[in-house]
Amino acid sequence: MMVSLAEIRSEHGQVFTENCPTRTVLDHVMSKWGVLILLALSEGTTRWGQLRRGVDGISEKMLASTLRTLEADGFVARTAYPEVPPRVEYALTDRGQELVEKMLPLMGWIAENANEIVAR
Amino acid sequence: MMVSLAEIRSEHGQVFTENCPTRTVLDHVMSKWGVLILLALSEGTTRWGQLRRGVDGISEKMLASTLRTLEADGFVARTAYPEVPPRVEYALTDRGQELVEKMLPLMGWIAENANEIVAR
Repeated sequence: MMVSLAEIRSEHGQVFTENCPTRTVLDHVMSKWGVLILLALSEGTTRWGQLRRGVDGISEKMLASTLRTLEADGFVARTAYPEVPPRVEYALTDRGQELVEKMLPLMGWIAENANEIVAR
Repeated sequence: MMVSLAEIRSEHGQVFTENCPTRTVLDHVMSKWGVLILLALSEGTTRWGQLRRGVDGISEKMLASTLRTLEADGFVARTAYPEVPPRVEYALTDRGQELVEKMLPLMGWIAENANEIVAR
């Protein structure tokens, strides 16, 4: 189904304007690191160390802060197990799963076209 | 059609790693301003001033630099007409159109869910 900006506006009014909540969500999820973390979590529950390796090149600090934002927005659930050493796992919530499902076709397109785009 | 990261990888190998061209493309298009400009252009050929007003809150500098990146990647075509005063128009290329088509379902989902996400 094709969606257009006009259709989005007819359902939701003047979205994407400066003080619209959509701007906050765009800021949080439309970033390279946000997308890469969500993608990594799309494969299932993941421990901190796996995420650190799975999202190639991310710093500890960026991983921690991006995870905190995604958790606060309700996209990611963090579970800490009272073990020694402590075990912390991250997983997509239902809302996070929905978001990733909308992102995957875009990521597939980027994977398919990136070589050609960058070679220009 | 559901797409998964595993399917993307089975077709394109280890994408989204640090030196992969996909990272460059993610950096260029997965930003709040990149997305908002592409969305504004999805409505058709647009003049500089219309874009400036249509992308609420963007600075002249950010609009200029984001348009340059999107033009260099082949998503946006810039046409300058030799008139007085000069008229400059921006439009999506076929590639930009394809990209926006993949983005619109995601933007629709964000428009639908942003209130609830931000209210948490």
